[in-house]
Amino acid sequence: MLERNVIQGRGVRNVVENGEVTGFEFRLRNPNYRGTAASLLDGVDVVVDGEKWDGEVPVWTVRGRTYTLDQLRATTDVRWALDETVTITVPKPGGLAVGVHHVEVVVYLRRPYFPPAVSRSAFPASARTVIVPPAPDGGLRYAVSTYSYSGDLNTSMTFEDALADVADLGATGIEILGEGNVPGYPDPDPAWIDRWHGLLQTYGLTATNYGSWVDTAMWRDRDLTAEEGAAHLARDLRLAHRLAFTSVRPKFGVTSFDLDPHPIWTGVVERCLDLAAELDVVICPEIHSPTPIRHPVTQGYLDFIEKTGSEHFKLLIDTGIFQTAPVDDGHEGVQAEKGKKRPAFLEPLAVPMADLAEILPHVHFIQAKFFEIDDDLVDLHVPWREILRTLLDAGWSGWLSSEYEGRRDPYRGRDQVRRQHALLRSLQTELEAGR
Amino acid sequence: MLERNVIQGRGVRNVVENGEVTGFEFRLRNPNYRGTAASLLDGVDVVVDGEKWDGEVPVWTVRGRTYTLDQLRATTDVRWALDETVTITVPKPGGLAVGVHHVEVVVYLRRPYFPPAVSRSAFPASARTVIVPPAPDGGLRYAVSTYSYSGDLNTSMTFEDALADVADLGATGIEILGEGNVPGYPDPDPAWIDRWHGLLQTYGLTATNYGSWVDTAMWRDRDLTAEEGAAHLARDLRLAHRLAFTSVRPKFGVTSFDLDPHPIWTGVVERCLDLAAELDVVICPEIHSPTPIRHPVTQGYLDFIEKTGSEHFKLLIDTGIFQTAPVDDGHEGVQAEKGKKRPAFLEPLAVPMADLAEILPHVHFIQAKFFEIDDDLVDLHVPWREILRTLLDAGWSGWLSSEYEGRRDPYRGRDQVRRQHALLRSLQTELEAGR
Repeated sequence: MLERNVIQGRGVRNVVENGEVTGFEFRLRNPNYRGTAASLLDGVDVVVDGEKWDGEVPVWTVRGRTYTLDQLRATTDVRWALDETVTITVPKPGGLAVGVHHVEVVVYLRRPYFPPAVSRSAFPASARTVIVPPAPDGGLRYAVSTYSYSGDLNTSMTFEDALADVADLGATGIEILGEGNVPGYPDPDPAWIDRWHGLLQTYGLTATNYGSWVDTAMWRDRDLTAEEGAAHLARDLRLAHRLAFTSVRPKFGVTSFDLDPHPIWTGVVERCLDLAAELDVVICPEIHSPTPIRHPVTQGYLDFIEKTGSEHFKLLIDTGIFQTAPVDDGHEGVQAEKGKKRPAFLEPLAVPMADLAEILPHVHFIQAKFFEIDDDLVDLHVPWREILRTLLDAGWSGWLSSEYEGRRDPYRGRDQVRRQHALLRSLQTELEAGR
Repeated sequence: MLERNVIQGRGVRNVVENGEVTGFEFRLRNPNYRGTAASLLDGVDVVVDGEKWDGEVPVWTVRGRTYTLDQLRATTDVRWALDETVTITVPKPGGLAVGVHHVEVVVYLRRPYFPPAVSRSAFPASARTVIVPPAPDGGLRYAVSTYSYSGDLNTSMTFEDALADVADLGATGIEILGEGNVPGYPDPDPAWIDRWHGLLQTYGLTATNYGSWVDTAMWRDRDLTAEEGAAHLARDLRLAHRLAFTSVRPKFGVTSFDLDPHPIWTGVVERCLDLAAELDVVICPEIHSPTPIRHPVTQGYLDFIEKTGSEHFKLLIDTGIFQTAPVDDGHEGVQAEKGKKRPAFLEPLAVPMADLAEILPHVHFIQAKFFEIDDDLVDLHVPWREILRTLLDAGWSGWLSSEYEGRRDPYRGRDQVRRQHALLRSLQTELEAGR
């Protein structure tokens, strides 16, 4: 699907020619209600952060071929359909800075079926768009979880759109939710599995972590037994492996406000460790606010690692535990406890970096949970500089996977994920330069 | 694609059992960010126009099978995925009245991974939904133009969604824009054409009118010749015929504020009349505001009919010419002339019904243009009672095809088209009852 805004968020980037940044480009969807012959296109005014380019200056790429405006006007059989974008390239030596830019356009189309005096139609649009720098080389690898696109998926974006967005912003890893993104879960059509592998190849993405659930309270009258829970987890391990994922995060039912996992968890995992080893898939319980690192729940996982000596049971850290400011955007389906301003997991837990450093050897995966990054690339809640410094100091290798959890306004997650990658990669580069 | 609102506009209807209306039903998309085992569903409160039903009362249809809440709770392998809807059926003898209703729900899901005290999650949603009565039998037939879904198509709805919406509201005709809805226009993949015929069958729709353009000013330095224009129109006639359409509306470039068609129009149509006859496709120029019926443009078309005696050239009426109040919602890409409050075609032209009656024998198709129908099913601009009375008095047979042209807010066209069909069909029934 195309984005509703005529200016598409996907595809915004600087243009490099012979090693020099010569300008920037972005994509437009057709603002009219019909497709158009390219000869009827009549220019596009562009303003970025107040800097202006006249309508005749940008060049247009239509169906993979690039035209000046005069060349477009002379075309005889080139068309811009409603279901496809064109790319507008604007000359600007050095390009646009990394970060958020205010882009305004006026697209001009001649419409012969309007009276000649008014047939040159002006379609204005504006957007905040994000220039994301390439990911720095090294042990930190950048991924995105489809969770970031909750609400948009299935309504304004397809699953393939999610992968296209992730690839477009230069991430190389994709995290999914099994019961969420896999059609026909838990028994997808083999054709879908083939298609999935094709999509990974098309978009140059690596399958990273697969989210699963062990719904211990799935019936009201009794809890799952450890055998039943193990069957659920084994099913997800097998499916994740078929989809090329290398870790599975099982979300166990909990028994307390501290997120104590249901006591069957050890029995479930024990029953699945051999299978995990056989498939080489790491089982990763999630450390999630309001449970900090120094806490019996986390300690229980660490004890389990020590006891079993397994290489296929490690920790997953949700960066919400490092929040230094409260989040007041709410969370769908969750209400604050009586007398509380917000649910406990949206309060700032502010786990110290020293605690993270201590357990990093046991951390397999990091969900880069966040809620809002502003137009200046400032995260309002999560201290990324400190987190990244801790990871780099430790030489930690693994995936940082964007998990946007802020307001579910249409398209907001897509824009915020781009901001997060611009922020994290810039910070990493800056921190590494300062070493 | 699913609608963003948890309460879907498509699928709202009264339920008939053994000839009695026993209740109403509507569809929900899953409000959570993951799919769910049906045993975790925990009821849905429903309020319609203030009338309440407790959460345990409605029955659920999941993947085609219907369950009481207790039956759902006991399921072991039934799931509600994110990419599918469930149907909620509420008992109410006599059902809901035709028209707009304010529906509120709270969907309850148990989420075992939240602390037990708060794991029963409440997802509220509300919507205005429309009950549309069946179309009355007779010569008037009800269709919808995909133009109504401009802005939504390709962004929040697929082309198939458009057809599904049209079928769901009980229309039997579909009007499209050639350069707009046909992928790869003017040379669609034969596989797409096969798919199109399959979709018509699936949704029980008849292809009605096909919108085309003859872009006389497609180049800036010279106009199309009559030969070139005829080639364009012939191409569309052939494509329309392959897609089973029975009329083509060519929109010629115009030369004046009165929408005088470019003078090549006669030469173009003359060259295509034999082909139109061979394909049995009627060429229909459009009478569109600000050009009334008593006007040289319309007279020119009538003269042409008389001169040629062709059965394959007739009029298409856009009901915007009957507007009795101005429209102040604007029109994308069009600005008012200097000193004018709005573009001329949004002013009320208020063409008299007597003029319509006079030319009805030459009218092949009616685009039921409209801009806004309120919650009481009152059209703010177009006098439908008078229009329908004129059509019924004349015993006119043909398609009334919804053409929503109001504000392009997401989903608004979809909702407004349902309102228009509720209004028109109710009026038709009322007028026929009074005869």
